[in-house]
Amino acid sequence: MMAAKLIDGKKISNDIKEELKGKVAELKNKGITPTLAVVLVGKDEASKVYVSHKKKACEYIGIHSLSYEMSEETSEIELLNLINELNNKKDVHGILVQLPLPKGIDEQKVIKAIDPSKDVDGFHPESVGALSIGQVGFVSCTPYGIIELLKRSNIDIEGKECVVIGRSNIVGKPMGMLLLRENGTVTICHSRTKDLKEVTKRADILVAAIGKPKFVTKEFVKDGAVVIDVGIHRVDGKLCGDVDFDDVVEHVSAITPVPGGVGPMTIAMLMSNCVQSAERLG
Amino acid sequence: MMAAKLIDGKKISNDIKEELKGKVAELKNKGITPTLAVVLVGKDEASKVYVSHKKKACEYIGIHSLSYEMSEETSEIELLNLINELNNKKDVHGILVQLPLPKGIDEQKVIKAIDPSKDVDGFHPESVGALSIGQVGFVSCTPYGIIELLKRSNIDIEGKECVVIGRSNIVGKPMGMLLLRENGTVTICHSRTKDLKEVTKRADILVAAIGKPKFVTKEFVKDGAVVIDVGIHRVDGKLCGDVDFDDVVEHVSAITPVPGGVGPMTIAMLMSNCVQSAERLG
Repeated sequence: MMAAKLIDGKKISNDIKEELKGKVAELKNKGITPTLAVVLVGKDEASKVYVSHKKKACEYIGIHSLSYEMSEETSEIELLNLINELNNKKDVHGILVQLPLPKGIDEQKVIKAIDPSKDVDGFHPESVGALSIGQVGFVSCTPYGIIELLKRSNIDIEGKECVVIGRSNIVGKPMGMLLLRENGTVTICHSRTKDLKEVTKRADILVAAIGKPKFVTKEFVKDGAVVIDVGIHRVDGKLCGDVDFDDVVEHVSAITPVPGGVGPMTIAMLMSNCVQSAERLG
Repeated sequence: MMAAKLIDGKKISNDIKEELKGKVAELKNKGITPTLAVVLVGKDEASKVYVSHKKKACEYIGIHSLSYEMSEETSEIELLNLINELNNKKDVHGILVQLPLPKGIDEQKVIKAIDPSKDVDGFHPESVGALSIGQVGFVSCTPYGIIELLKRSNIDIEGKECVVIGRSNIVGKPMGMLLLRENGTVTICHSRTKDLKEVTKRADILVAAIGKPKFVTKEFVKDGAVVIDVGIHRVDGKLCGDVDFDDVVEHVSAITPVPGGVGPMTIAMLMSNCVQSAERLG
């Protein structure tokens, strides 16, 4: 039995927030108040909760947040007009449109309307491309947070076999690009992968972003691997991830718990993107 | 000994050009003449040769090409002004700025100035990002050509272990994204990869884009693999690729020769992008 190191996302995200507080104070000394515009369309309950968490984080760090709550009946053109207005506002540094949007609004069109220099979610195709070709741009918050978890836990990525399960636009693909940027040897696998266990067992660093509760058991994991669990599910009233934590924990060198692993990092990195944007745009 | 199938890039690229001829004729019937603006700055001899090949291909297919030859002393702002002008010209469907540019001109700034809807090289960050997230956009010609080589040789990609050696912006990274889009399990490895041979030997489809002559020998290749050679070098007066063809050929199921493999596909796909652009922009 191995003593797996628990990667404490709660502590690391708090450390980051404290650092950001300092940066915000410096910006305010220069007369710049980092400002995030948060756009919520419709009445999705989960979205409301996410938005309130994001605004609370802003408040804690000292980022000014502007709320735009629009009705379920908002038309695409109205939303695009708002985004255009926010793009042109010099005192807005970040624009966040909470997804999903109501039916009848083309999400991709809305994302593409956001000025890439204010795209703190990192979802604009130009942001995605900038990450790939090594240019300045915002990085999707969850994979960006995972890189921070690894670095701040002193886990080397360079030369390591990194395997990502899942190829979503928000996690899997940008995760692969980030691990590659850190000089990992990167494999992306997915539902069409044959012998998935054979592939994941090669991983020194395994990132599970599949969306299936407790999918990754010890048969998927090499002894001593580092396991990062992106999933979050509620099963029988309890939270769990894509990884069967209890089954895997004795075999790995480090692992993120659910909750308290990757989850808290996403908002911390959103805050970090907002502060970066204020530093760049002034 | 295995009878390796030779993947004939010359024939396949000619097939594509013939198909494009037909499409161009259709467009002309509708009053649309696909038009490519080719911008050459300075006096790099290799660039001149590439540009002349591209213009010749245009002529063959029926694409109208416009030449903009600018002196070595051209300033960045002059070049950006030209691009802006071409962006606004309704009868220009594609803009190609031949790289490299003279010192003092920021290549990335120039690439980013091209309207993504006319970016037939697929180098704009928005094009790169669109490929990653599955949106409409132009795909970098060399990796795009490799996908065509595989498809037209009836080589399945879905579920296959695809390994790309090299992570350049122009080949390695978009190649990975394209193979992923085709449902391959994709690994990107590079100079910092440990045990490179172990990684490449997993490949059902191996793409070599390293830039070192005859680097890939049979020790890197699984028996029966498909090997795609992106390199082109002149060694002792003879052309060769990144793969040691003679050493590998008896062990693989299919392989691209150098010359006559990947090379001819790049221009064919550039032409294909121009025609696609004319179809879209009208």
